[in-house]
Amino acid sequence: MFQTAELGQALSKKEFKQQERVLRTHLLALQQEVRKRNQFPVLIDFAGVRGAGKGTSVNLLNKWMDARWIRTHAYDHPTDEESQRPAFWKFWRHLPPNGQIGIHMSGRYSRPLLDYVYGEINEFHFKRALRRINNFEKALADDGAMILKFWMHISKDVQKERLETLENDPLRKWRMSEIDWKHYEMYDRFIEAAEQIISVTNTGHAPWEIVEGQDYFYRSLRVGEIIQDRMERHLVSEEIRQKYLAEMRQRMEEKAETHENEGINTSLTIFDQVDLSKEITKKQYKKQLPVAQAQLANLHAQAVQKNISTILVFEGPDAAGKGGCIRQITEVLDARYFKVYPFSAPTEIERAHHYLWRFWSCIPMAGRMTIFDRSWYGRVLVERIEGFAGDDEWRRAFAEINDFEEQLIDSGIVLLKFWLQISKDEQLARFQSREEIEHKRWKLQDEDWRNRERWDEYNLAAHEMIQQTSVKDSPWILVENENKHFGRIQVLDAVCSALENALAD
Amino acid sequence: MFQTAELGQALSKKEFKQQERVLRTHLLALQQEVRKRNQFPVLIDFAGVRGAGKGTSVNLLNKWMDARWIRTHAYDHPTDEESQRPAFWKFWRHLPPNGQIGIHMSGRYSRPLLDYVYGEINEFHFKRALRRINNFEKALADDGAMILKFWMHISKDVQKERLETLENDPLRKWRMSEIDWKHYEMYDRFIEAAEQIISVTNTGHAPWEIVEGQDYFYRSLRVGEIIQDRMERHLVSEEIRQKYLAEMRQRMEEKAETHENEGINTSLTIFDQVDLSKEITKKQYKKQLPVAQAQLANLHAQAVQKNISTILVFEGPDAAGKGGCIRQITEVLDARYFKVYPFSAPTEIERAHHYLWRFWSCIPMAGRMTIFDRSWYGRVLVERIEGFAGDDEWRRAFAEINDFEEQLIDSGIVLLKFWLQISKDEQLARFQSREEIEHKRWKLQDEDWRNRERWDEYNLAAHEMIQQTSVKDSPWILVENENKHFGRIQVLDAVCSALENALAD
Repeated sequence: MFQTAELGQALSKKEFKQQERVLRTHLLALQQEVRKRNQFPVLIDFAGVRGAGKGTSVNLLNKWMDARWIRTHAYDHPTDEESQRPAFWKFWRHLPPNGQIGIHMSGRYSRPLLDYVYGEINEFHFKRALRRINNFEKALADDGAMILKFWMHISKDVQKERLETLENDPLRKWRMSEIDWKHYEMYDRFIEAAEQIISVTNTGHAPWEIVEGQDYFYRSLRVGEIIQDRMERHLVSEEIRQKYLAEMRQRMEEKAETHENEGINTSLTIFDQVDLSKEITKKQYKKQLPVAQAQLANLHAQAVQKNISTILVFEGPDAAGKGGCIRQITEVLDARYFKVYPFSAPTEIERAHHYLWRFWSCIPMAGRMTIFDRSWYGRVLVERIEGFAGDDEWRRAFAEINDFEEQLIDSGIVLLKFWLQISKDEQLARFQSREEIEHKRWKLQDEDWRNRERWDEYNLAAHEMIQQTSVKDSPWILVENENKHFGRIQVLDAVCSALENALAD
Repeated sequence: MFQTAELGQALSKKEFKQQERVLRTHLLALQQEVRKRNQFPVLIDFAGVRGAGKGTSVNLLNKWMDARWIRTHAYDHPTDEESQRPAFWKFWRHLPPNGQIGIHMSGRYSRPLLDYVYGEINEFHFKRALRRINNFEKALADDGAMILKFWMHISKDVQKERLETLENDPLRKWRMSEIDWKHYEMYDRFIEAAEQIISVTNTGHAPWEIVEGQDYFYRSLRVGEIIQDRMERHLVSEEIRQKYLAEMRQRMEEKAETHENEGINTSLTIFDQVDLSKEITKKQYKKQLPVAQAQLANLHAQAVQKNISTILVFEGPDAAGKGGCIRQITEVLDARYFKVYPFSAPTEIERAHHYLWRFWSCIPMAGRMTIFDRSWYGRVLVERIEGFAGDDEWRRAFAEINDFEEQLIDSGIVLLKFWLQISKDEQLARFQSREEIEHKRWKLQDEDWRNRERWDEYNLAAHEMIQQTSVKDSPWILVENENKHFGRIQVLDAVCSALENALAD
């Protein structure tokens, strides 16, 4: 694989200067076109052999283009912020929004490569890490992102020269460390692992480009040329794809209209099994509540000490009682250690990112509890039903969500997903009561009435959501909340029992 | 995940009959539309719990639609033909061509599920098997295939009833075996593994549909409805996608024309490193050839006995001497144990399949040697350069080819890939000699002269091919064949040494 990048490719300074002028004009124009279109982000990754020109290439790109719309990020040892969260949090964090260019060094490939070469992970975990990267890149590419990955290569002999030169240069010597020679000794192992990485993660939507890094002039121009070529192609393909998606959406809507009211008449959903008559008396509630709350407060304090994070997700129809359930929980917790995020329509900057981005940014540090009042599941509920997410988009969201939650759980987070269920009649009653009681009136919006009209559609979408995302390690908990007291105690008990289990591990 | 399919969904016979009439008319019309368009195949898989209605559903589909264009296949214990080849050979073998519907039972998911439940493979190999399935489905879907997978589900209690009923039915009792009760006891383990399977392999382009299988009427109609819905959508999306691909291709061609002659002037390729002056004298050749051939004959005979298969791939410019190299090998082998396949443009039936299909069908049984005179690499060489494969198509082919070859090697096949290189001048000399010598004239075609005009393009494409597909377990062997004697001995030696290694393992 790499012998094709040990040919001694080189350019004279004169040739370079001549071609550089043309190239940078093109690149700048393309960057502005990407910015103007504002439809997709550009992600460029640099990996490769030490001394093969990653740093100089990144600097040149920043010089050639307008650095104001480039977000360069070199990953180093993870900060506290980073190490206390799932590994991919830091990659989501630094994603460029639509219209901008992100350039990343020592990014998502760095850790698996080092860990594998050092023998700290076996092949199973190495491949698993690569699969996770593939999922990440696929999710972004499916959403329109342009992704390009450079492997900068030099031979072992050339690397030796490079390191010696650096070592003997008094001005640049500080950039050398013992690790550089150690890695030089391990050159062959690095190359072997790199070959596996490229084989597994070289996809049509996120290709690797291997560039020979020996000659500054050659490699710089080559990198620029590849980016130019790729951006040109992506601008065209994305334009056509957007047209395709728009046509697809329109055709599907037409089809849906002609098909309305077809289909099997009997369509039971999982909610038909929910026994909404379950209840406890107010007296029982008053007795049980303080006990459960005290237990929760105690368990949460232990979780904080043991650095166990918790994520609670609340979904359900409007007026299902999410707010009340959340309040029962938070009112007994130390406010330093929990956060509640209510989600409605995404903001402008959120819309300029992948839909999961705004949820990733809320992932807590170790020991915290984070409560989502509505969540990423909006993708397969409201966004599906209102048509904000196209057919392909919400369908592939199930796999993306399972992958996302797997990452949360793998990192040790206690994840609980509650679906609060009420009957359609109860919803009406609660709406009416909101209209009547002044201090509750703000809660009721025109949108709520509109959603109510589509009750059955929401029910079916939620049924499918549960089917696709209720997995062993992260099942949905269906809460009968017709009687709020019953539901609240059920939620409190579930949280306590999950924390108990996690603390016992 | 599965509790959503334990609701007791049911339909009356009357409702069923009524809706069945409409549904089957639709399905038949859709099938004919798929056939008429002749653009993509339909793949439907049935998996699930024993007794949940896989068989009856498949029978109904064959009854509702026109069975002449449905290829139903139930995988059973692998035949000799199958077990002596890489595991996926049997799945490629039964793929429907464009315009037809393939219905598969106990297909690619069956083995990983059983092996994992029985503890015969660990999680690493289970996940690896699922990754391989994902690659398979992605390659077909990228090529336009409609893929749909049903998991037919019943609860443990319902399964028990089913098995008891079957056992007590004198006419159907023969269909029961001890294994059925054994698997019933293992129900929970099956379900847990199934959940993992669905989580990992539920993609937008190859979705799983979980269907409650308790009631015959409900499940039958539900399966039919889902297929109807999916076929309707796929006909639309495929139509739009084809338009999109055509537009993309056109735009890229226009772009290529305006860009011609741009780019870095110095473009060394891996072939610039090939020392074409290497030669041996005719005398040396006459001496070495019989020795090498005798060794090959001997090693191949041992490989036959040890059931070691060998695949040799020959690529290179026209007149590079592929035929001669192949003859040196085959003339000393037992004709029962080798096959040579020359490849040129695909036939009509080959064009109606994924491009890898025709190569899969040539994979040898254990102990055979198979020689490919040109191969799947045509995708990234002639098809790329002549524009038969679009930009996206040949770019994603690298990953597909690496995956394909990994499967060959994993199954124990000795795979060698030879690139025979000659100079442009030598090619001219050989062309001219072919024109002059009557019995060689047939070898020279107008096409060869046309390809010669694009020498540099082919060179660059081959360079990229080697970069992307020369991996540790399956490197390209560059053969200097300017002097045919030198090249032939080199090839013979390489084959011998690979066989020696394989026999020593």
